[in-house]
Amino acid sequence: MIKIGILGYGNLGRGVEAAIRKNPDVELTGVYTRRDPGSLKIASEGVPVRHADELLTKRGDIDVLIICGGSATDLPVMTPKYAAIYNVIDSFDTHAKIPEHFSNVDKAAKAAGTIGVISCGWDPGMFSLSRVYADSILPDGSAYTFWGKGVSQGHSDAVRRIEGVVDARQYTIPVEKALDAVRSGQNPELTTREKHTRECFVVAEEGADKAKIESEIKNMPNYFADYDTTVHFISAEEMKRDHSGLPHGGSVIYSGTSSEGTTHVIEYSLKLDSNPEFTGAVLVAAARAAFRLNSEGLSGAKTLFDIPPVYLSSRTPDELRKSFL
Amino acid sequence: MIKIGILGYGNLGRGVEAAIRKNPDVELTGVYTRRDPGSLKIASEGVPVRHADELLTKRGDIDVLIICGGSATDLPVMTPKYAAIYNVIDSFDTHAKIPEHFSNVDKAAKAAGTIGVISCGWDPGMFSLSRVYADSILPDGSAYTFWGKGVSQGHSDAVRRIEGVVDARQYTIPVEKALDAVRSGQNPELTTREKHTRECFVVAEEGADKAKIESEIKNMPNYFADYDTTVHFISAEEMKRDHSGLPHGGSVIYSGTSSEGTTHVIEYSLKLDSNPEFTGAVLVAAARAAFRLNSEGLSGAKTLFDIPPVYLSSRTPDELRKSFL
Repeated sequence: MIKIGILGYGNLGRGVEAAIRKNPDVELTGVYTRRDPGSLKIASEGVPVRHADELLTKRGDIDVLIICGGSATDLPVMTPKYAAIYNVIDSFDTHAKIPEHFSNVDKAAKAAGTIGVISCGWDPGMFSLSRVYADSILPDGSAYTFWGKGVSQGHSDAVRRIEGVVDARQYTIPVEKALDAVRSGQNPELTTREKHTRECFVVAEEGADKAKIESEIKNMPNYFADYDTTVHFISAEEMKRDHSGLPHGGSVIYSGTSSEGTTHVIEYSLKLDSNPEFTGAVLVAAARAAFRLNSEGLSGAKTLFDIPPVYLSSRTPDELRKSFL
Repeated sequence: MIKIGILGYGNLGRGVEAAIRKNPDVELTGVYTRRDPGSLKIASEGVPVRHADELLTKRGDIDVLIICGGSATDLPVMTPKYAAIYNVIDSFDTHAKIPEHFSNVDKAAKAAGTIGVISCGWDPGMFSLSRVYADSILPDGSAYTFWGKGVSQGHSDAVRRIEGVVDARQYTIPVEKALDAVRSGQNPELTTREKHTRECFVVAEEGADKAKIESEIKNMPNYFADYDTTVHFISAEEMKRDHSGLPHGGSVIYSGTSSEGTTHVIEYSLKLDSNPEFTGAVLVAAARAAFRLNSEGLSGAKTLFDIPPVYLSSRTPDELRKSFL
């Protein structure tokens, strides 16, 4: 059994917890929080909730620590910090800052002899894998990634961090016209703005400067600045009633040619009832791989690009070849 | 530059040749044939055509030999034989016999210190990867694989080997009703027979026993016995006029749950203008990986399950993290 600790018990933490219950070879040994541990009621019976400070001295009951924090401010600090003590997994999703984050985690993990798998989930994650496989096979081609319609946790989180925001939900919406053009094999040139729109539902503090919040959202670099974004201010009741689910999905569509006039279209698509539960499921598979890689004496930062698929599976290589190849 | 030799110059050999021209880091150094080399005109200018016998003493101008033979009788013999001399790649696609083939190639490759990547292509190959990733992430789920409509090279080849058959083309056709049920998330139980039909177009020798040919096709184990198969006898002219393309495609649809009532649908689909060119493209990416694995001192049989995606790409790990993650 691979012993897993979860740091952070928000949507993603609960998604990881659900995934652990579906995997027979991993067990949850503790949930760690920066809040008062006594205030947290978790779904797994008999599993202790402890303060994050208890992670600072290496614990024997953790093989892999899955860090469930936000990409904006949590993970850049937490992942290197805990990689210095444990094998760690994160879902860092600020695409533009991945090289820097990778480098920071790599240094900490190599010094400590641990493995840190960063940017797991579906994008970055499964969608990234789909892009790399397609580009490796058909280098003469183009990848198009469409998200949604669905709630982006990272973007909702980013909005929630703005002063005066109590709660927020951000929907990413693909532009139908763009989707149609790509699927028809037209290989169109599309700007970021032409592919998706973003829609935010925000509960503001009483008396907050709504115009300032809206402006901060729309101009936030990496997250919103390159998109047409609409912002709606709603009540907490409306938020609960209309926006409590976290569905998501999307498609990576790759169109490539192997010779004059010979085109192939590869599509990888996801329809997810729950973004955090699916992301959590990818993190748990990555935790299995991290444990195995580290058991073989390897260390440093990794991404799914570096991991042989067989390391992600609870099945034996023989079984995979016999039943899945 | 990675130096590639191609053994066998049928549809797949030509597909590999086309793929090599699309990849800047690999070069074709020779095409090898069991036929009279003088009888072969290849597409690549300045590349020598040699007899297969010239492979028997290790050649310095081959880093990886891509073996483009049929799965029924060629590859079980050829892949272990040449793995004893070279890094080799094949597209062995008799699913039921993969464990035995893997074991034979593994023995030869380990003894010789070479790498043998077997069963590359799209199924086995990319579809297999899709099944393993999905099952690793959502172990509580079911994979459904649909092929076609398209021409299966392996099945056409198997028909062509029957006595009295001059030429053959086999179309695999998904059953619409089954496809609809799976995409709607019904998780139906489907037999092999309920998912696909097979349709064969056969040019027979003059005076051949057509009833015997039809019976041999329909009862062929692994290939046809478990399907509803229709067989049409046509003229060589009709074959050329109506069946000269080799399109294919299909979908792996995986439906899995992460908690009570929470379902995710993962779909990987391919629309291929040319099955052999796409398969060839996968083989060339696998050749790149084989060369790298062997350069690191590894040996033995591998499948795509064992290969970190980064090894398949001509791009650097830094570039992949920066632009694809």
